[in-house]
Amino acid sequence: MSFFSIGLGVGTQNRSGQWIEVYYPAPIFQPDDETISQFSSPVGYHDGNTAIELTDDTIDKLISSVEDAAQKDILKQFKASEQPRVITFLAADDEIASTPEAYLKLHLLSHRAVKPNKVNLDGIFPQLPNVAWTSEGAIDVEELPARQLTARLRGEVLEVQSIDKFPKLANYHAPSGVRIAHTARVRLGAYLGEGTTVMHEGFVNFNAGAIGPGMIEGRLSQGVIMEANSDLGGSASTMGTLSGGGEIIISIGKDCLIGANAGTGIPLGDNCTIEAGLYITASTFVQVLDNEKNPVEMVKARELAGQPDMLFIRNSKTGQVECRTNKQARELNEILHAHN
Amino acid sequence: MSFFSIGLGVGTQNRSGQWIEVYYPAPIFQPDDETISQFSSPVGYHDGNTAIELTDDTIDKLISSVEDAAQKDILKQFKASEQPRVITFLAADDEIASTPEAYLKLHLLSHRAVKPNKVNLDGIFPQLPNVAWTSEGAIDVEELPARQLTARLRGEVLEVQSIDKFPKLANYHAPSGVRIAHTARVRLGAYLGEGTTVMHEGFVNFNAGAIGPGMIEGRLSQGVIMEANSDLGGSASTMGTLSGGGEIIISIGKDCLIGANAGTGIPLGDNCTIEAGLYITASTFVQVLDNEKNPVEMVKARELAGQPDMLFIRNSKTGQVECRTNKQARELNEILHAHN
Amino acid sequence: MSFFSIGLGVGTQNRSGQWIEVYYPAPIFQPDDETISQFSSPVGYHDGNTAIELTDDTIDKLISSVEDAAQKDILKQFKASEQPRVITFLAADDEIASTPEAYLKLHLLSHRAVKPNKVNLDGIFPQLPNVAWTSEGAIDVEELPARQLTARLRGEVLEVQSIDKFPKLANYHAPSGVRIAHTARVRLGAYLGEGTTVMHEGFVNFNAGAIGPGMIEGRLSQGVIMEANSDLGGSASTMGTLSGGGEIIISIGKDCLIGANAGTGIPLGDNCTIEAGLYITASTFVQVLDNEKNPVEMVKARELAGQPDMLFIRNSKTGQVECRTNKQARELNEILHAHN
Repeated sequence: MSFFSIGLGVGTQNRSGQWIEVYYPAPIFQPDDETISQFSSPVGYHDGNTAIELTDDTIDKLISSVEDAAQKDILKQFKASEQPRVITFLAADDEIASTPEAYLKLHLLSHRAVKPNKVNLDGIFPQLPNVAWTSEGAIDVEELPARQLTARLRGEVLEVQSIDKFPKLANYHAPSGVRIAHTARVRLGAYLGEGTTVMHEGFVNFNAGAIGPGMIEGRLSQGVIMEANSDLGGSASTMGTLSGGGEIIISIGKDCLIGANAGTGIPLGDNCTIEAGLYITASTFVQVLDNEKNPVEMVKARELAGQPDMLFIRNSKTGQVECRTNKQARELNEILHAHN
Repeated sequence: MSFFSIGLGVGTQNRSGQWIEVYYPAPIFQPDDETISQFSSPVGYHDGNTAIELTDDTIDKLISSVEDAAQKDILKQFKASEQPRVITFLAADDEIASTPEAYLKLHLLSHRAVKPNKVNLDGIFPQLPNVAWTSEGAIDVEELPARQLTARLRGEVLEVQSIDKFPKLANYHAPSGVRIAHTARVRLGAYLGEGTTVMHEGFVNFNAGAIGPGMIEGRLSQGVIMEANSDLGGSASTMGTLSGGGEIIISIGKDCLIGANAGTGIPLGDNCTIEAGLYITASTFVQVLDNEKNPVEMVKARELAGQPDMLFIRNSKTGQVECRTNKQARELNEILHAHN
Repeated sequence: MSFFSIGLGVGTQNRSGQWIEVYYPAPIFQPDDETISQFSSPVGYHDGNTAIELTDDTIDKLISSVEDAAQKDILKQFKASEQPRVITFLAADDEIASTPEAYLKLHLLSHRAVKPNKVNLDGIFPQLPNVAWTSEGAIDVEELPARQLTARLRGEVLEVQSIDKFPKLANYHAPSGVRIAHTARVRLGAYLGEGTTVMHEGFVNFNAGAIGPGMIEGRLSQGVIMEANSDLGGSASTMGTLSGGGEIIISIGKDCLIGANAGTGIPLGDNCTIEAGLYITASTFVQVLDNEKNPVEMVKARELAGQPDMLFIRNSKTGQVECRTNKQARELNEILHAHN
């Protein structure tokens, strides 16, 4: 097994000295032995997953030890910091045991080092404190009221953008080749591949994302991945494992189009379309039609999970949900009964 | 009748000296006589609903008079303020007659002193000026263009977050035990009970809210209350009395699940579900099915208002809207004809 | 042909000296010859569409030359600017050839000088660089990571509001008589007429808008215009030419009501209603009913494009999409077959 990750971070601690968030400008994924050694010795790291607060002294030692130019540059800038600094070592991709670890894994997703569902996020919720994300930075929610009053009295407003366990991605990283029209709707831990555009109505949770290129105008729930050249329409919904979708992990294949105000509770293969306004849940009865629009069989949508080349509509004459394919009846029958 | 409320506030006035907003860090609901007396004497208050601007002198007197430690501390901090300060007395819950009164009532809702629809908000709209909510605080919209140009020329941007009569809750108060993933979507005057999470797509208007705990990923319109342990799905809609719902006040009972992209135009009792993507309006015809899925009667949805244990779906084979219950046919017939 | 526009602007350049955005506080639409002359001579402008960077020297000359009090005042304020200043001349409404030109046209839309679809926006996308819109102003996305780290180390957060080609309207202009509850959802280039309210869920793209008065709680896609006294419900969708609507330009007539979570893929005439939750696409089969609710004909929705007085519902007993009108069967037949 490779060593999992090392990250140099600068973050925020509350008045009790507990980390409430950490920013890693350039996290390292699967460092080689030489790199591990250069980072370990100056701070006395031996093994396991741990976060070690840095001092001016250990930073000086790291500057001498680390060879990578970009990392060395970060360390030099860290010296002038008024904020606490940390180095986090993750020897293995184990359950998350601290706030700096949680933030490092979220960074790895957003830096495209790991894809959604390919990193162990067990234990993340208790390690993410609820934070007020404000114009003065991250503030422990307990400390917020006093800060708000103080700001007010000096004629300023303490702008509170969010009160949440997860910060927004864009204040931590701007992935290359990406547009995010309204950054409040993409959490740190979202994976946005090159060529992804997230419009104002788009939303991407942590551990979710799009391989890119693609257009996101709807909501990618936790665990959902959208493949290349697909379009998730305005307000379109994907059921997440945290919000009603049950144990099935939803995904969207390549070249798919989910219409505006539509939704899916099943994973879709490549080249699928759901018409605007139609919500397919796993238990929706679907009339399957062959390439000549002849009815083949009535099935629950979950039987069609992952199939390519499907067009879902609600027949506007009968109200019946239909799935049209470009396959013949015999071929369809074989697909439908493959798992029986 | 109890005395209604007293609030110590700091706010913003426009260039004409008119209040455009007031922040009350700790509004007092139904103060006892002793408290009323301590706040009244120093500022010469006698009766009625009124807002009195505070001076350093009256603040000194209040500090001497007021015994409550938290209120005394606010008064001490007020002394150093560069912003105008006010004390607002509401002897009775009457029609709103000033901007400081309007803001005090909105605070009472958000501080959980009063529940939605339990406070008199008549006359609120004319008392709430349209304000530009900016990174430099509240600005009268008339004064905005000059401020924008000035900021630009010194190389800054005057960030205008909102141009609206209502500010966002989180810049005034962060209710305990609450997450608001994107604060721009919750207005001051929203009631968010302990354990409420408002996700990015959630929206809560003033005089609306959730008793908590609960999950809000859809829109709670003005006047709508959601009871404990319910989940309003992504983009789910509740019709409001200000926006098309007519005179019926919508509510959502305990243990309800409104699916993503669904909606309701009727109040729901406890333990109700509306499937994802289905919008029930008051005039939707609904086929009621008993606990053995036998049809009982076709009714308009408004006849089902407030009933518990209902599951609404659109039959995906027939397009018909159905309501399944866990009741027998005879029991259902009695319920349906109780009001005939 | 009239001269198209002149604009005095202050903007942002990246480190390479390229314009990344321009703010025009008071763009001039169709100036008369005398005005053109007053602006041209001091900067040596002759003809064509061009943007000329201003110096303290040319600003002095313009102050002497320009007679209009508002423009002269802007010029005087420009003298103290730390930001680069520009004057943009558009002799004709031609294809867009530079960033300052693109921004001037977007301003003209938002200042209500031109209506959506009435200005030539060809070539706009390549002239709009992808910009990080932050609390420190517009930043070239390439320059963002270094700025983020620097801000962090001094204990501040560089708030990144958006990474997009288009900025939000409200940081450039606040149209009179308008409320925008959440400004992140209205792009520069939106046209918001007097009396328009955009609620939190509303969205207005560039080259789209509402004539006003009206209520926008849904999404107006690029190219879509809504006429007076109409209401676009929460999350309601209008298909845009950029996002799946094909070549038909969608519009919404006067006195229309598009229900919450509804949508339209056809233009609507005056006095039309789409019930909450119903999405009409151009190819939806619609059963047309006359004023006595008798079926007249089954047509595709596109045949009904632009007709007034239509009420669209999905029959909740049959699942069939219906259009009820206040017209008689014979009259309807004539309308439906007028284009055959």
